[in-house]
Amino acid sequence: MKNLVLGIDVGGTKVKLGIVDAKGCVLVRSSLSTKLYNRNKNDLIQAIFAHVRALLKDSQITLSQISGIGIGLPGAIDPFKGLVISLPNIPKWENVPLQRIFEKEFGKPVCIDNDAKMITLGEWKFGAGKGQDNLVCMTLGTGVGGGLILNGKLYRGAGFVAGEIGHMPINEKGHSCNCGGYGCFEGHVGNAQLLKKIARIFGDKNLSIPDVHALALKADKRALRFFEEVAIHIGNGLVAVVNLLNPPLIIIGGGVSSNYRFLFPTIHRVIQERAMKVQAKMVKIVHAKLGHDAGIFGARVLLAEGLGKHA
Amino acid sequence: MKNLVLGIDVGGTKVKLGIVDAKGCVLVRSSLSTKLYNRNKNDLIQAIFAHVRALLKDSQITLSQISGIGIGLPGAIDPFKGLVISLPNIPKWENVPLQRIFEKEFGKPVCIDNDAKMITLGEWKFGAGKGQDNLVCMTLGTGVGGGLILNGKLYRGAGFVAGEIGHMPINEKGHSCNCGGYGCFEGHVGNAQLLKKIARIFGDKNLSIPDVHALALKADKRALRFFEEVAIHIGNGLVAVVNLLNPPLIIIGGGVSSNYRFLFPTIHRVIQERAMKVQAKMVKIVHAKLGHDAGIFGARVLLAEGLGKHA
Repeated sequence: MKNLVLGIDVGGTKVKLGIVDAKGCVLVRSSLSTKLYNRNKNDLIQAIFAHVRALLKDSQITLSQISGIGIGLPGAIDPFKGLVISLPNIPKWENVPLQRIFEKEFGKPVCIDNDAKMITLGEWKFGAGKGQDNLVCMTLGTGVGGGLILNGKLYRGAGFVAGEIGHMPINEKGHSCNCGGYGCFEGHVGNAQLLKKIARIFGDKNLSIPDVHALALKADKRALRFFEEVAIHIGNGLVAVVNLLNPPLIIIGGGVSSNYRFLFPTIHRVIQERAMKVQAKMVKIVHAKLGHDAGIFGARVLLAEGLGKHA
Repeated sequence: MKNLVLGIDVGGTKVKLGIVDAKGCVLVRSSLSTKLYNRNKNDLIQAIFAHVRALLKDSQITLSQISGIGIGLPGAIDPFKGLVISLPNIPKWENVPLQRIFEKEFGKPVCIDNDAKMITLGEWKFGAGKGQDNLVCMTLGTGVGGGLILNGKLYRGAGFVAGEIGHMPINEKGHSCNCGGYGCFEGHVGNAQLLKKIARIFGDKNLSIPDVHALALKADKRALRFFEEVAIHIGNGLVAVVNLLNPPLIIIGGGVSSNYRFLFPTIHRVIQERAMKVQAKMVKIVHAKLGHDAGIFGARVLLAEGLGKHA
């Protein structure tokens, strides 16, 4: 088998690796803990190198079968220069020419980009967004990330940081946010906020979101109410996106989205009630299809874009 | 002179006509009152026909010198089918094949689109947005309209109604809006709201925005405070656009923007304080350059796009 792509999804807690074939199957996967190598960026890079070689060896895939490597990272990336500008949640990563470093090691074309953009690319070509020219992808997790496919292309923005749905303010006043602003969407529906809300409603600091999901399945009123309130915030945030971009499709992924059964009907209702008629009528809200693999799939799409100068 | 374009900007109160040459000069202009022909759409169309012929005659330009006609209208337009879907402020305009009607009359290629999108196209190629691949254009007036140039192209959205900046909610709660939603940006900075605000602050229902501008020039504290409060709302609304789209440029036009001297410094400050650092650092906020002619210029750009099937 030839024309395989190696995808690497660098997260704040875990680095996921996988090899995708041309048909869009992930053949093999592995992962390592980011936190173990947090003190030194070179340690993390060397650890990823070792994991790539081990993955190839274990799966009996040779480097000659790999046509390129795509890497997603949680922060500001310049995909044209192949430069990691900064990673807010992984210390000491600033202005790292990661594309060049990987090309030197493996002698293959390498592309890098922001992780939410990689997920968006993956869902667009292999997941819930197949065949669309325009879509919005949103990830609900610790943070609220996003990516935009507009006019048949990933839209990156002037500084490659477009898509920050989580930092659209949803109120003129509100709590301050990590981003330096306040009243942000993420401040209402990010994981930390949801856990605080759960602790307040149930009076139990140890209750997790899956615990509340389990309660909702048993029709617990407080749990159902919790999800409804969260969904109203999500709907309110998305109305701005729907009216501004008139997308035919919004894909919602990320850990929190696995509660979609209790979230999506209300999100849909809020958008129908509050967004402009034409926009509301045509937008579909769907759950992401690729789960944890989305970024790995995105690597394949990113490489096909052929950004940057390759070795 | 050849290769002239006739631009027609249909507004709720006035229809403006102009002829633009290839260098981007408006050679001649005329206008008519929309309201005089409000009762019947065919009356308005016939009146525009007559004004086009009079404009050509008066300026000694022959139809053979005109390479095409571009028409902007205040509502939902399908530029590919050349169809006026609906015009909220001009009664009885629904599903009007305006492109075909004009092509039949003049035997020239005709393109039609939404007026805010025409202004955006005009400012992009001939005004404040020259040379940019990405920009946001916002018009402040009776309504708050908008247009998006993304990835080097006008972004229309799935139903051709993208760009509704005025109907992005800026609060989760708020007054109901004409659009069917509530808490919209337009509800804070549209003309009607500004006049109400002026009446409240000054206790005078007859005071206009230009009157308050004149007071602000004399350093009247209430007038300065009025513009500051309006600018804070505009800034808050734009933070969402800046974080989502990471544009290098936001062009602000429309009647209210002529108070830019008292609005722009505060808009700029709010964006710097509240938007994400990379986005805030790179975005420039500028005043539109083409004034009332922007839509006429836009006709030239729209025709160059070559949408729809022409006669």
